[in-house]
Amino acid sequence: MNKKIVIHVLGLSLVLESACMLLPLICSLIYRESDAFAFAVSAAICFVSGFLLKSIVPKKRNMYAKEGLAAVSLSWICMSLFGALPFIISGAIPNFFDALFETVSGFTTTGASILKDVEKLSHGMLFWRSFTHWIGGMGVLVFLVSLLKLSGGDNLYLLKAESTGPAVGKIVPRVQSSAKILYAMYTFFTILEILLLLIGGMPLFDSITISLGTAGTGGFAVRNSGMAGYTAFQQNVVTVFMILFGIDFSLYYLLLMRKFKAVFKSEELRGYLGVILASIILICINISGLFDNIWTALKHSAFQVASIITTTGYATTDFDKWPEFSKTILLLLMFIGACAGSTGGGMKVSRIIIAFKTVIKELKITVHPQSTHKITINRQLVAHETIRAVNVYMVAYFVIFAFSLLLVSMDKFDFATNFSAIAATINNIGPGFARVGPTCNFGDYSSFSKIVFIFNMLVGRLEIFPMLILFSPYTWKK
Amino acid sequence: MNKKIVIHVLGLSLVLESACMLLPLICSLIYRESDAFAFAVSAAICFVSGFLLKSIVPKKRNMYAKEGLAAVSLSWICMSLFGALPFIISGAIPNFFDALFETVSGFTTTGASILKDVEKLSHGMLFWRSFTHWIGGMGVLVFLVSLLKLSGGDNLYLLKAESTGPAVGKIVPRVQSSAKILYAMYTFFTILEILLLLIGGMPLFDSITISLGTAGTGGFAVRNSGMAGYTAFQQNVVTVFMILFGIDFSLYYLLLMRKFKAVFKSEELRGYLGVILASIILICINISGLFDNIWTALKHSAFQVASIITTTGYATTDFDKWPEFSKTILLLLMFIGACAGSTGGGMKVSRIIIAFKTVIKELKITVHPQSTHKITINRQLVAHETIRAVNVYMVAYFVIFAFSLLLVSMDKFDFATNFSAIAATINNIGPGFARVGPTCNFGDYSSFSKIVFIFNMLVGRLEIFPMLILFSPYTWKK
Repeated sequence: MNKKIVIHVLGLSLVLESACMLLPLICSLIYRESDAFAFAVSAAICFVSGFLLKSIVPKKRNMYAKEGLAAVSLSWICMSLFGALPFIISGAIPNFFDALFETVSGFTTTGASILKDVEKLSHGMLFWRSFTHWIGGMGVLVFLVSLLKLSGGDNLYLLKAESTGPAVGKIVPRVQSSAKILYAMYTFFTILEILLLLIGGMPLFDSITISLGTAGTGGFAVRNSGMAGYTAFQQNVVTVFMILFGIDFSLYYLLLMRKFKAVFKSEELRGYLGVILASIILICINISGLFDNIWTALKHSAFQVASIITTTGYATTDFDKWPEFSKTILLLLMFIGACAGSTGGGMKVSRIIIAFKTVIKELKITVHPQSTHKITINRQLVAHETIRAVNVYMVAYFVIFAFSLLLVSMDKFDFATNFSAIAATINNIGPGFARVGPTCNFGDYSSFSKIVFIFNMLVGRLEIFPMLILFSPYTWKK
Repeated sequence: MNKKIVIHVLGLSLVLESACMLLPLICSLIYRESDAFAFAVSAAICFVSGFLLKSIVPKKRNMYAKEGLAAVSLSWICMSLFGALPFIISGAIPNFFDALFETVSGFTTTGASILKDVEKLSHGMLFWRSFTHWIGGMGVLVFLVSLLKLSGGDNLYLLKAESTGPAVGKIVPRVQSSAKILYAMYTFFTILEILLLLIGGMPLFDSITISLGTAGTGGFAVRNSGMAGYTAFQQNVVTVFMILFGIDFSLYYLLLMRKFKAVFKSEELRGYLGVILASIILICINISGLFDNIWTALKHSAFQVASIITTTGYATTDFDKWPEFSKTILLLLMFIGACAGSTGGGMKVSRIIIAFKTVIKELKITVHPQSTHKITINRQLVAHETIRAVNVYMVAYFVIFAFSLLLVSMDKFDFATNFSAIAATINNIGPGFARVGPTCNFGDYSSFSKIVFIFNMLVGRLEIFPMLILFSPYTWKK
């Protein structure tokens, strides 16, 4: 293990974070809020710590899988610790575990909150919460990679560890250019959503924060009523953009390159849109009796399906009061998640497709043992390593889920709450059902349970392996 | 597909079932119950149908994997349909779906019931219910194989399809001898339990039925109070035998052959006993406040842990009223299940061990990509096919679980009830939590939900693939 390069990268990401804190600082100054001081102090602490770590320059600049994974997971943990400083220093969230929960929930684009009253927060704090979604959505290391040459190699391992999906590839041959293209598209779509919301009559501050939360598929709201208080047009804009941010960004690049056929052929995109459409229709029929007319039911159904499958977690209505059938569909969507290569969480549609195909392949082999069967996606062969990684991911996922459920069951909540709380955190959704439903929050869980949720959110966002590698003795052995 | 040999085997298993019905017939005659008539008619229908199907003699006696799997799943479905006849004809359970549910629950050793008052049933009916557990526990095709040479090959595929665990082997080189040894040990342990219960003062009828239910890890009780009304000694005997019937039967053969070292080395046995011990201690501490003294808490804890991990499903107390932590441990035990090669259900300890090892292997490969790592169990290499089969099993398991949850959510129950009902049926436990807890039953679910549960019970007992193969178009293509 080349520890020095890991520390060096860690330092760089903290320096970048301190720069990120200048935006909420400016926001606080514009609104003449005293929280500007908290951001200034936090940014200073963050910069000095980052600068000191950064100055540890490795002799060898080699970075392989283990260094990449460790650098990513440690960066995320440190950024969360430092990112909690503004909440603590300002007194907005004085409790350390609560502040850390809120920050991890932000960076991992979960959007689960411990706050009962978000409207008490200053504009600066609300902006910081939403901005952590935006940073975490595409990934801070991806941003670093787009700016700098971090290691002797081509930084592919950093991109791989932070990006979502079973087989992360580069959009263009160079990693740095890939990262630049990703962030350019990400910024473009975010600005487009802000503009559309402004046209729809949403106040500027809400437009920006809601768009940052949509882009990262995060879900922190800036009003206590969540997304319920906005107009139907504004809600529908958010519905469309949630679905757009749940799509593999490399497909947008293909569109840009006018490779329409390749986009149309994408099995993952078809599966993703198919599941969304089917879910919207089924839920709309199921909940139609709860609303005045079918269009209102359709609006809520579409919003909630988009919000949950992309793991954003915004809510226009209390879906915990919906019939069990609709709630179960939403629960299953939590696990499916968005597309690989998007900012969304969950298992990812492509993993589900690969898993389905392994079952079909096994059935074929059983019936015709002599014949050979290969698993393909988009008519391309799926590598054996990818299939193995998907299987191992699923096993590790369910093991972590089971252990978390056991640990959290020591708290005072019932099974439905605990189960959906784990599902909502490990899949980076935000709200769950029952006592962590859209009108409730995670504040009443004990600090111990919150640590479990913090681990789950990180495990979910980084797709397990970067986190597991930290706890593996093999990583640290000479 | 050699359809004729499948039909031939189907016929033989129905003839065997008709012979099995003679035992409850005798039981009814002893107790001078009118249900004897229902058994006589059912046995006759079963015999005639079986004889007609049996007389379709295949030209080629070849039997490969697909024929073996199809023969097993079709036999189980037909035996369940015919096995429901006594309930319907006697009027004990007049509704067809209810009677089928109860019979499938019997054969698959689930023990979930739709009956509110089992004491209303005649001795003959109670005996038939418990006897279906015993037949289903070790498997009816295994019994057939022990008696007859069914095909041109060595019938290994039938044994494989009906036995539990990821890699079914023969105890001795010949399949027929293996099946004979299995049934001999099975019968021996059953008689031993009956004798011990009799010594403990349990009435003969209860001793026999309870022992049949323990042996098959079924769980149908003969009293409305379940196992709560028996003495501590009787309950403890059942605890011990539940654990014994959850162990791989080939280990008993090794004991018989005085290969103690091989038994001691078994990773699955160690894992199984380790999980049991840890669970008993944790639950005992957690529930100690609910009982007068620690020994009563320990008795209930040990009984319930043994009952749930072996997927028997007997209850000495209403564990649905236990704290959430204890309930979550029991819920996780439902999924782990017993050992491969036992009569128990669930995923099986060996599958869990293999799954864990694939995760550890992946971590090692990530850290040291050049080195090679092999997965071993009991210091023997696990075949690539076995690992693949375990992965595919898990994926198929969770997919079926998710679909079932969705289908059952259309019914009128809450999430905790639906989730535990699926867990209790697919893992062949019996009781779940909430409204399918140990003091409740499955009777209030709709017929549609019952069909879902029936499918789940069969999928669980036959470990998915024999059932999936029936629905695969590849199986029936020329």
